[in-house]
Amino acid sequence: MKLRIIVTLKNGVLDPQGKAIQHALGSLGFDGVSDVRAGKIFELEVADTTTDDQIDEMCRKLLANTVIENYRVEKA
Amino acid sequence: MKLRIIVTLKNGVLDPQGKAIQHALGSLGFDGVSDVRAGKIFELEVADTTTDDQIDEMCRKLLANTVIENYRVEKA
Repeated sequence: MKLRIIVTLKNGVLDPQGKAIQHALGSLGFDGVSDVRAGKIFELEVADTTTDDQIDEMCRKLLANTVIENYRVEKA
Repeated sequence: MKLRIIVTLKNGVLDPQGKAIQHALGSLGFDGVSDVRAGKIFELEVADTTTDDQIDEMCRKLLANTVIENYRVEKA
């Protein structure tokens, strides 16, 4: 089973990487970029028997820092 | 307009971060994870007048290294 786990910073958490990208886009002449947020994506190939609880545990224990990050699981 | 740009390593490009995560998941007792690939996701808020060509140019000039990475644009 293919999983796609998207980890993004929570609203309100400062995102210096996103801000740097936003400024760089402006410098390159791309106007009208009003916000950029940077995040991570993990594409996992797991056994078909993996339960939703196990996937959730993987995210909370390793893939995301739930203090400052949200995660979302998409099954493909 | 909200854009979501997903940048992933091309097939065949080594992904040490993904391999490290795969091993860490194994150490944590999650069996059956046969592959992990790590990538980046950028959530952009751009002007509604931004054309597809401009978006493509942003990706090629700044967001993705097209020698080793693929990118995909999703409009939300």
